Amino acid sequence: MRIVVDAMGGDHAPEVVVDGVVQATRELGIEIVLTGPQQQVQAELDKHDTDGLPIRLYHASQVIAMDEHNPSAAVKAAKDSSMVVGMELLKRREADAFFTAGHSGAALAAALLRLGRLRGIKRPALSTIFPSQTPQGTCFLLDIGANAICKPEYLVQFAMMGSVYAERVLGVSNPRVAILSNGEEEGKGNELVQETVPLLKVSGLNFIGNVEGKDIPWGVADVIVTDGFTGNVVIKLAEGVSKFLMETLKKEITANAVSKMGALLAKPAFDAVRKRLDYREYGAAPLLGVDGVVLVGHGRSDALAIKNAVRMTAQTVENGVLEAIKQGVAKFNE
Amino acid sequence: MRIVVDAMGGDHAPEVVVDGVVQATRELGIEIVLTGPQQQVQAELDKHDTDGLPIRLYHASQVIAMDEHNPSAAVKAAKDSSMVVGMELLKRREADAFFTAGHSGAALAAALLRLGRLRGIKRPALSTIFPSQTPQGTCFLLDIGANAICKPEYLVQFAMMGSVYAERVLGVSNPRVAILSNGEEEGKGNELVQETVPLLKVSGLNFIGNVEGKDIPWGVADVIVTDGFTGNVVIKLAEGVSKFLMETLKKEITANAVSKMGALLAKPAFDAVRKRLDYREYGAAPLLGVDGVVLVGHGRSDALAIKNAVRMTAQTVENGVLEAIKQGVAKFNE
Repeated sequence: MRIVVDAMGGDHAPEVVVDGVVQATRELGIEIVLTGPQQQVQAELDKHDTDGLPIRLYHASQVIAMDEHNPSAAVKAAKDSSMVVGMELLKRREADAFFTAGHSGAALAAALLRLGRLRGIKRPALSTIFPSQTPQGTCFLLDIGANAICKPEYLVQFAMMGSVYAERVLGVSNPRVAILSNGEEEGKGNELVQETVPLLKVSGLNFIGNVEGKDIPWGVADVIVTDGFTGNVVIKLAEGVSKFLMETLKKEITANAVSKMGALLAKPAFDAVRKRLDYREYGAAPLLGVDGVVLVGHGRSDALAIKNAVRMTAQTVENGVLEAIKQGVAKFNE
Repeated sequence: MRIVVDAMGGDHAPEVVVDGVVQATRELGIEIVLTGPQQQVQAELDKHDTDGLPIRLYHASQVIAMDEHNPSAAVKAAKDSSMVVGMELLKRREADAFFTAGHSGAALAAALLRLGRLRGIKRPALSTIFPSQTPQGTCFLLDIGANAICKPEYLVQFAMMGSVYAERVLGVSNPRVAILSNGEEEGKGNELVQETVPLLKVSGLNFIGNVEGKDIPWGVADVIVTDGFTGNVVIKLAEGVSKFLMETLKKEITANAVSKMGALLAKPAFDAVRKRLDYREYGAAPLLGVDGVVLVGHGRSDALAIKNAVRMTAQTVENGVLEAIKQGVAKFNE
């Protein structure tokens, strides 16, 4: 197994990426190809004892910034970027998968540019793993931003791809698939939801109907599909609300000595909750529908997150997600 | 000032509604007409010393359930319900405003049935007051569910109505109006957002552009407009995420004796946060665009919430919101 990792992806690249990759090769026995500026990445590698570790460096002179506003244009302009070069290696089958903690929109654009869509897939989707009270502790949500404007048939394909991923990588048998709506009852929804529901019903997937925003954390479904506009609002709102709550609590707690003492005693509990909400525990989420295994991690990833993400990328390859999606599309087209 | 209050609205009606109304008449000197089943409501009134208080009871034999799935049909079927009768009193100008803590969809349907839309308004909107780090401590969000399917011109009218409400009732001068999108940059958005932005720019409102889900709690805008599908997902997700976080924290904290002790000491801080997030502090939100002052409170309202809601309803009348919206529409139509 060989995985290409974008050495320049994420807020703390290349330092934490190289650190995580070194840990991953030690623990998981995976070959890694790092893409990025030779000197800069080598300098990071030199900080570690990489003797005998299967890590190779592949030079790419450019970097796509995390705050790039027009990722499509950036990707086209930066063909020698760590992201595009990484995708190129995957396209040439010099590796089995690609992982980046960089700009997710740029990863999508680079994947479309170099790998293209899987045959039969109309649109690829960005996904995320959301903390939820399912047996597996998470729910798989897509699209979270690749397609602000969607058609019903896209959402049906997202549901199929999400179902495959949940089954193969997250270990959920017969995943419960739902569509996000403004009410649980059938008939609720905007035009897109209303037109998609009948298609999901005959899709052969384990479709359980509409779910509401409040249901997402409570384990009602394993896979939730939505358009990339709504999905993006959802993940960003969840982030905003969690941060607001935790900061408000912190501010209140440190406002007086007694509650400050209380907070100190309760700190392990706070830490456990933070961990529960922590993207790092989940590592990365796949970009589904492109012709290659591509996973995208959180920009704030630290070395632990990178290591977990590399593991998850390897699992996605091992469990034949790409092949299963191809079969899923073929079955739909019959 | 005379306000009609739906005695049967909310999860704990009529008990808490009557309790809140008694407090409101005592403190605010407002006349109240309660609608609901005579005997049942009178029995609640008898629990209080209402001697000399300007509270009148108006009999309505039916009640619309909080979990009604088809509010339009329910309202048409229950013309003698506390909700429809209340709207009828408002229509006959026997009162200045109507407040209910009942089913918001039913309130909308009843308002449309009895009061109709304000002249020139294409669609009414449901709104909410969201905790946010603005100077006023909240941001005004609409539509949160009246219209799952929207046109650009509806959103522009929502923006105008929201701006009027924020200025007149929430005390914000020149409210900053934003549209919810999947990215801050211009050009981001689904078709609806992309078509609405140019109209908002020339609307004469203080339009500041796109905001993302994560921005809502952080005070970036005073009024945020969105379609009723997305708005509904937003408020329900915020509710779900907050509940999930607080419950996860609680579970972790009570898992061992030391952190349990800590939590006890930090309890005032938790309570302060809960209060900060508490809908009761904000009382109620208006149903904008119908031909009458109608406010809807949270179904979980207690007596304090009802009292605050009655105060807010009175402020909405006093500050001439309806007239200002009429003028706003007229200005737009010029």
